[in-house]
Parts: sequence; C-alpha cells; structure tokens
Amino acid sequence: MFIKIDLQSEIPIYTQLQNRIIEGIVSGDLKAGEPLPSVRTMASDLGVNMHTVNKAYNFLKQDGFIQIHRQKGVVINPDGMPEVTSEYLGKFKQEIRPIIAEALCRGMKEEDFSTFCQEVFNNLQEKRG
Amino acid sequence: MFIKIDLQSEIPIYTQLQNRIIEGIVSGDLKAGEPLPSVRTMASDLGVNMHTVNKAYNFLKQDGFIQIHRQKGVVINPDGMPEVTSEYLGKFKQEIRPIIAEALCRGMKEEDFSTFCQEVFNNLQEKRG
Repeated sequence: MFIKIDLQSEIPIYTQLQNRIIEGIVSGDLKAGEPLPSVRTMASDLGVNMHTVNKAYNFLKQDGFIQIHRQKGVVINPDGMPEVTSEYLGKFKQEIRPIIAEALCRGMKEEDFSTFCQEVFNNLQEKRG
Repeated sequence: MFIKIDLQSEIPIYTQLQNRIIEGIVSGDLKAGEPLPSVRTMASDLGVNMHTVNKAYNFLKQDGFIQIHRQKGVVINPDGMPEVTSEYLGKFKQEIRPIIAEALCRGMKEEDFSTFCQEVFNNLQEKRG
C-alpha cells in the first residue's frame, strides 16, 4: 500500500498517517492481520521522524485499529475493527462540529451537506469493490 | 462572547480559536461588524502566544470571516460571510473524508451518520434562536 503524506499541510503528519491507514482499511487495501512496516521502516519510507510514526501507531493501537506485537510487529487488528462506542461518538461530534459550523456560516443547505457527504461515502466505498 | 480553549487538546490552539469564532458567528453571538478583541488582548485573555491569535485571525481574514483594519481593529466581516466556493468545497471534502472513513471502518451506517450530523446541525442552529 502506497502512503502519501503532505509535508506542507496544516494537518499534523501523525494524523495524516492515521487517516491514510484507516482509509486503507476501509478500501480493503489493508486487510485484517496484514502487517504494516515497522516504525523505523515507515519513518524512513515517508522521510519523517520515528517519533511521528510511533505517535500514529500508538493512537491506532489505542483505538483498536492495529496491534503491536514484539515479535510479529505491527498488524491490522486481526480480531476485527473497533465499534461505534459512546466515547467514539463524542469524538465524532466534536470533530464534525467545526466542519458543520463553517458550512452553516457559508450558507450551505443541509441537503447539500448530505449530498457532499454521500459523494465522500461513495468515493471511499467504491474503492472497496 | 466567552471563548473557551482546551490547552490539552490535540487540536492546535489557533484552529480551536478559528472554530470558536465561526461557531460564534453561526450562533449569532458574533454579529456582522462586531469587534473582536485585539491580538494582544485575545492572547492575554486566553493565556496563549500572540503569534497563535495572529495565525487564527489571519486565516479567518483570508477566508473572509473577519476584517482587520488599522484603525477599527478586528471586526466580523460587515459585508457578509464567505460563500460555498469550489475551493472551499475541496477543503470541506478533505476535512470530512477521514471522519467518514473512520465511521465506515467502525461500521457506522450512513443513516446513523446523517442522524448524528443532524443533531450537530440542530445544536449549532438552536443557539441562533
């Protein structure tokens, strides 16, 4: 799987890395139990600090997307993905709130909001096929 | 308007400040032409660096949410809010993509996604009344 990071972006690199891996799982590029590069290799591949990769991996591990084994290394969680918990829902609403606020501020209609989200849903899911 | 910043959050402070101001506009707490504290005052009030406030104000100015005058100071754009441009739509989809990806990964259904967004929409808009 090819991971592309934008070093100029305002989005922290560890967040971009988390996002790319989650998108890889959604698209089916990264399957349950599949190994990810070690922290060292991933850092070297992306040209970023090992600490940055470590941070991304630790967040992904904490949330249950990956497992980190001393011997097997880093793998996509073979026991399945985390679910929609109430803790996650809190985070979800916190993350989506500023996006919806800006959309409202700019006068986007709720039905247009739904349509644009639908497009992103389809785009993420069609890769799965 | 009372602005609350979470200094422990993973979200950069300048981003939180931008978000709070945009939410303030949506809720009607901040009206067109209304003055915002100077960079110095806002930084002092929040206990953050002036550079941080400057960054937030500059992004808000760039996007057309506020105006920065040498004499009148910082005001909510009196000429109205920016619109849904194609550039903004690109940013919108980029921002919402990782949120939708994680939701899909966790098995959230599209109708549930819509319901949760609806709740955030209502919560932001009901304050307007």
